[in-house]
Amino acid sequence: MNGKKYVAEAIGTFWLTFGGCGSAVLAAAFPQVGIGLLGVSFAFGLTVLTMAYSIGHISGCHLNPAVTIGLTAGGRFPANQVLPYIVAQVLGAVAGAAVLYVIASGTAGFSLDGGFASNGFGEHSPGKYSLTAAFVAEFVLTGVFLFIIMGATHGKAPAGFAPIAIGLGLTLIHLISIPVTNTSVNPARSTGPALFVGGWAIAQLWLFWVAPLLGGAVGGFLYRWLSAEPSAPVVGTDKPRA
Amino acid sequence: MNGKKYVAEAIGTFWLTFGGCGSAVLAAAFPQVGIGLLGVSFAFGLTVLTMAYSIGHISGCHLNPAVTIGLTAGGRFPANQVLPYIVAQVLGAVAGAAVLYVIASGTAGFSLDGGFASNGFGEHSPGKYSLTAAFVAEFVLTGVFLFIIMGATHGKAPAGFAPIAIGLGLTLIHLISIPVTNTSVNPARSTGPALFVGGWAIAQLWLFWVAPLLGGAVGGFLYRWLSAEPSAPVVGTDKPRA
Amino acid sequence: MNGKKYVAEAIGTFWLTFGGCGSAVLAAAFPQVGIGLLGVSFAFGLTVLTMAYSIGHISGCHLNPAVTIGLTAGGRFPANQVLPYIVAQVLGAVAGAAVLYVIASGTAGFSLDGGFASNGFGEHSPGKYSLTAAFVAEFVLTGVFLFIIMGATHGKAPAGFAPIAIGLGLTLIHLISIPVTNTSVNPARSTGPALFVGGWAIAQLWLFWVAPLLGGAVGGFLYRWLSAEPSAPVVGTDKPRA
Amino acid sequence: MNGKKYVAEAIGTFWLTFGGCGSAVLAAAFPQVGIGLLGVSFAFGLTVLTMAYSIGHISGCHLNPAVTIGLTAGGRFPANQVLPYIVAQVLGAVAGAAVLYVIASGTAGFSLDGGFASNGFGEHSPGKYSLTAAFVAEFVLTGVFLFIIMGATHGKAPAGFAPIAIGLGLTLIHLISIPVTNTSVNPARSTGPALFVGGWAIAQLWLFWVAPLLGGAVGGFLYRWLSAEPSAPVVGTDKPRA
Repeated sequence: MNGKKYVAEAIGTFWLTFGGCGSAVLAAAFPQVGIGLLGVSFAFGLTVLTMAYSIGHISGCHLNPAVTIGLTAGGRFPANQVLPYIVAQVLGAVAGAAVLYVIASGTAGFSLDGGFASNGFGEHSPGKYSLTAAFVAEFVLTGVFLFIIMGATHGKAPAGFAPIAIGLGLTLIHLISIPVTNTSVNPARSTGPALFVGGWAIAQLWLFWVAPLLGGAVGGFLYRWLSAEPSAPVVGTDKPRA
Repeated sequence: MNGKKYVAEAIGTFWLTFGGCGSAVLAAAFPQVGIGLLGVSFAFGLTVLTMAYSIGHISGCHLNPAVTIGLTAGGRFPANQVLPYIVAQVLGAVAGAAVLYVIASGTAGFSLDGGFASNGFGEHSPGKYSLTAAFVAEFVLTGVFLFIIMGATHGKAPAGFAPIAIGLGLTLIHLISIPVTNTSVNPARSTGPALFVGGWAIAQLWLFWVAPLLGGAVGGFLYRWLSAEPSAPVVGTDKPRA
Repeated sequence: MNGKKYVAEAIGTFWLTFGGCGSAVLAAAFPQVGIGLLGVSFAFGLTVLTMAYSIGHISGCHLNPAVTIGLTAGGRFPANQVLPYIVAQVLGAVAGAAVLYVIASGTAGFSLDGGFASNGFGEHSPGKYSLTAAFVAEFVLTGVFLFIIMGATHGKAPAGFAPIAIGLGLTLIHLISIPVTNTSVNPARSTGPALFVGGWAIAQLWLFWVAPLLGGAVGGFLYRWLSAEPSAPVVGTDKPRA
Repeated sequence: MNGKKYVAEAIGTFWLTFGGCGSAVLAAAFPQVGIGLLGVSFAFGLTVLTMAYSIGHISGCHLNPAVTIGLTAGGRFPANQVLPYIVAQVLGAVAGAAVLYVIASGTAGFSLDGGFASNGFGEHSPGKYSLTAAFVAEFVLTGVFLFIIMGATHGKAPAGFAPIAIGLGLTLIHLISIPVTNTSVNPARSTGPALFVGGWAIAQLWLFWVAPLLGGAVGGFLYRWLSAEPSAPVVGTDKPRA
């Protein structure tokens, strides 16, 4: 595998950010027939499901720095690939937000003041949830997300179904937490729109890097411990699969 | 397999309770774009779908005392494992409700008086359904749930698809019955929030143990009878698969 | 295979009628957070998806006289099994409607005047569609439904996925046509609630037998012709698979 | 394979147009319980999912001139089959719109002035999006659609899951873009209703041929480049799979 895996990660994260945030910005509150938070939840999940079937065999389809870190903590991904993966993901997310801006600004009444699907807490949480609630939510949800990813891609799990479990897992995470933080669990997805909105969105961006990365690392490590065979000499010697 | 299967059951039931009840408490009635009962139904189902792919090969992913009892009645699970599984499930559910409480209470206007996704009947049924209607609904729905679980994990069913059938089966059950009892079919899931709400929720908790356990046992036994080969000498000698 | 396949068909059609009609009667129009026609569409489809994984290897999981007739027309099902299958399906559907009645009548304000999820046309169509529109809709939709069933269970289609294609196909059919006829495409499902409502529902029941059975037969035959290999001597000699 | 593959394409595109546009025209805005844009998004996606399992092994199930062109650009489909495939698709789409007209006009108050699910931009965009926004959206979304199709049907992707990835990918595309153009990404689907509506719908139809065809070609070529093995002598010598 050559450098094309980074291109794949960038395209995939472009799709996650453009598609997920796009559904929120363009369609969630459309009068009378809008897709609502349920539709946005499906959109985010389906970006991952579709890309996992498409580029899973090229890059592993992380699309998310917290996934990359979590898989590394789980012994499934080499540490020397973490940085280039994250760079590719962030570049893709920014491109996704940029294309979304071109489309969304093509109608009267659009304004970045609407939030442009940025993540936030406190007064910028959709439901005015506190910093503590936001941090706990992002930490726990990213942790379980990595737990699911580690499990669904484990060698004993049924082959081929992981994109369904992981994609619909992201849908589920959004069904729970959009009112709390607009749902990140993905620092790249958070960074894209925040660069366009600026101000508060940049000021609060730290939480959507720190909490998902911590949660992802804990979730990856937890599953690694849980699935370690008693007969294996040391947990840390699991062979990485990715 | 060592004691880690109990940890897996606890984590899985944590996710079912935190995710399912969390979607109901945090997002169902969010103004204008709330996910509604449809979104809550998908959330509950997807907790099971995601965990079944993740820990199915570790613990079987019951996440529910009625499933454990039903699989035992169906000849698929050893009786001496029933008690530790149920203990792990209840502990996980209580932890799920606790973490949900930390997040949900992080915004003004939250109150346990909203029910915190507890199950109820009579005046505590969302649609004011009677005790009889509630009992029949929980009994029948848990019975069919076990029937589906037994069938989708049968050796002649297509391999790998059981988590989809079972998870979306739980979604379907919620689509039918949230107005009747807020939908339990799972005594552990009912116990978690009830401990926080207290009062009526504790007083009515018996129904959400009795009806699902009875229904699950009947459903498991019914499928066992239905799928027994005529050539087998006695139904009771089916080899357990789990 | 012995008589248990008829029991399986009855249980499956019980589930289709109880679950599909139950979601419509109990949850569709629940104030503010009701599941709407989208939720009802998923409910009907998921009854078939779940049962197909559970009893597909026992009875083929038709759950519908139009499916039984269509598969016979398609050369996949023996003619001498048609009548007992249809009898079992109708008995299951009536039982499903009966259990639904017990639950639904357990709250104040319930009335069979609400239609109890019966199918209808003209003034009894949800959107007041004419007899002609209703007949065309039921005929075409059942035809394509059988076309999908024949294709997804064909030997060249990927194994194991048919319940997903068929179940979600039924969801799609409901997404299109609930406003037209409340969606039947299944004479057994129509008969169950009609017996409880009586009057107009019985008087209009003929259409929901005639149009689906005709459509199903045409759809089954159309796929049989389409998939027949040029090298086969006569179309009619395809070996049945079911 | 003989001429029946063209029949299969026509039937499949009939279903896509009848089912997708039908859900929009008949059920999207049904009072109080309408399926909304979320339901329409699922309907379009499920037409493809169901047909892909049913006729994928007969014709490849393109159902869309942009898919046919994109797969050709991606080296997966022979150029000499492009024209007959597109002819079959357009004929199927027109038939789908015709049958929908028969049903939809069977109730008082129906009018083609409602748009009959035609695609449009500017004042005929549901959300009044500009020509530029519409073109960018259709170009990008069709491009990613082909990228997903190429990937999910790649030899290294898990076998059998492509219809799920592709069908739900089309659902996702609709979740993003119905407010912008009513979502085409498919010139045949656009042509069917436009012939009935005439006037503006015909006048704007060019965009829904040009943008999807260009986007599809770019998407197909992009994936071809991305997945080319370094060891292969020339990208252009990939063997077509379809």
